[in-house]
Amino acid sequence: MHAADRLDAAIAETGSIACVGLDPRPDLLPPALVDRHRGTGSSQEAVAAAFTEANRRVIDAIAGRCAAVKPQAACYEAYGLPGWRALQDTVRHAVDAGIPVILDAKRGDIGSTAAHYGQMAFGGAPDLRGEACSGMGADWLTVNGYLGSDGVDPVLAAGGGVFVLVKTSNPGSGELQDLELAGGGTVADRMADRVAAWGADRLGACGLSDVGAVVGATYPEHAAALRERMPDTVFLVPGYGAQGASASDAVAGVRSDGRGVLVSSSRGITGAWQQTGSDDVGAAARGALDAMNAALEAAR
Amino acid sequence: MHAADRLDAAIAETGSIACVGLDPRPDLLPPALVDRHRGTGSSQEAVAAAFTEANRRVIDAIAGRCAAVKPQAACYEAYGLPGWRALQDTVRHAVDAGIPVILDAKRGDIGSTAAHYGQMAFGGAPDLRGEACSGMGADWLTVNGYLGSDGVDPVLAAGGGVFVLVKTSNPGSGELQDLELAGGGTVADRMADRVAAWGADRLGACGLSDVGAVVGATYPEHAAALRERMPDTVFLVPGYGAQGASASDAVAGVRSDGRGVLVSSSRGITGAWQQTGSDDVGAAARGALDAMNAALEAAR
Repeated sequence: MHAADRLDAAIAETGSIACVGLDPRPDLLPPALVDRHRGTGSSQEAVAAAFTEANRRVIDAIAGRCAAVKPQAACYEAYGLPGWRALQDTVRHAVDAGIPVILDAKRGDIGSTAAHYGQMAFGGAPDLRGEACSGMGADWLTVNGYLGSDGVDPVLAAGGGVFVLVKTSNPGSGELQDLELAGGGTVADRMADRVAAWGADRLGACGLSDVGAVVGATYPEHAAALRERMPDTVFLVPGYGAQGASASDAVAGVRSDGRGVLVSSSRGITGAWQQTGSDDVGAAARGALDAMNAALEAAR
Repeated sequence: MHAADRLDAAIAETGSIACVGLDPRPDLLPPALVDRHRGTGSSQEAVAAAFTEANRRVIDAIAGRCAAVKPQAACYEAYGLPGWRALQDTVRHAVDAGIPVILDAKRGDIGSTAAHYGQMAFGGAPDLRGEACSGMGADWLTVNGYLGSDGVDPVLAAGGGVFVLVKTSNPGSGELQDLELAGGGTVADRMADRVAAWGADRLGACGLSDVGAVVGATYPEHAAALRERMPDTVFLVPGYGAQGASASDAVAGVRSDGRGVLVSSSRGITGAWQQTGSDDVGAAARGALDAMNAALEAAR
């Protein structure tokens, strides 16, 4: 199924445009959960087991209430093989729960190397017989477009959608992205034009393409202008909550038909147990997600 | 040891400024080697076993004759957990052989997420007791600087060097990188200025910083100009051989003291068995590397 159509269907079913980031860190896990895994296997295996349990609990609790989940590859890769296994388990658990998965790995390379990143996320790498291996099972991969079309087309060819970094949510994002070009507009504007071009022939039945854009919620003034440049693009919007953006900031790039925005929150959902006084990561995540959904609905 | 000093010492010891890219693909392995592994374990495991054997053979044959090796993470990630294990084995084998390792993963994220990528490459991720886990064991990580300083500083803090993409070797690299800025120069020029600034206080005893730059050999006319912007930066130069650049193109950015350039070749070395009529990947790689070293020495 076309990645944008699958996402659109999930939004219609759940009534939510929220994407739950799964960025586990040992210091953000409930102490009781950490205690259960401390000392089991190697250090990396213990961390991976704790991540796996926390993520499964969160996924079980939020299924049917969010549009997507977004595991952050870096958090898992830092723990070697066990970490990678936890990432695979998390993606599989979300797939089994019927939730679209955005693998946030911000990959970017060229040609056959870019194809390999697509195959990592979506499958299709050839084995020693030339037959296709399975991949992570994600629906989307975040991609860095600094290398140009050579880095994006091969990922799409592997069969999933991409979210290309256009305007990121961090304070230093302007160092490169906000530079004014001699021909008018900024570097981010030009990246947006590229995203629109890459996706122009790739619209799903819902009218949106499977070449999305990362547009940080912390720069709402850019979002409306970027929407004009990318009318048929899904915006993946990080920065809500922990990074200081409000619900209305987060939906600043929404289309007039209400479509085209997916708002991501990580610590605000998976770390909500810290505010509740309970160690139940799942229940706390569900509560925080319900509140986020209400805030986004009101702002939209 | 400071990453640039370690690299400088390896260049002095071996007399080589070559970096051997380890980018395995099933269709680039000798048939006899493929036959040995076909049917062992799962499809992914068979591929990973073949990659591991080929890489070990190449590493054993080229140790002492090159400045560094550069495994391409994508090639391994496409094969899931077994692939990641093959990548780890390859890095470890190179480390054991005394060869500096550049992990070519082109990571790029911000804050704690960028730190996690650094920890993946260099170690230091906290376990459930707060103690540091080991990492891949690489000396350098390639990094995408589109997100600005927020994406580079945390990687450096994890204790290794970085090569930041400045001007890549692919045909489409100009789409973003060659855009002219209103303030003069191009996007790649501005990235070069950032690289110089990030590395300014990070010089090793050899006078080079551990913030390097990827500067494609396919654009030699840019290399000399970029050298002026980055006087103390190691250039990692892809594009030699398979992508069409000559030895003199590849060393166009060398400093007047002969330092500052590392020329990378992947298929030209690891795929050299295809030209020799032999299935001995190691011996063929050594022969091709010796020829590359001679060509680079003549050009330098």
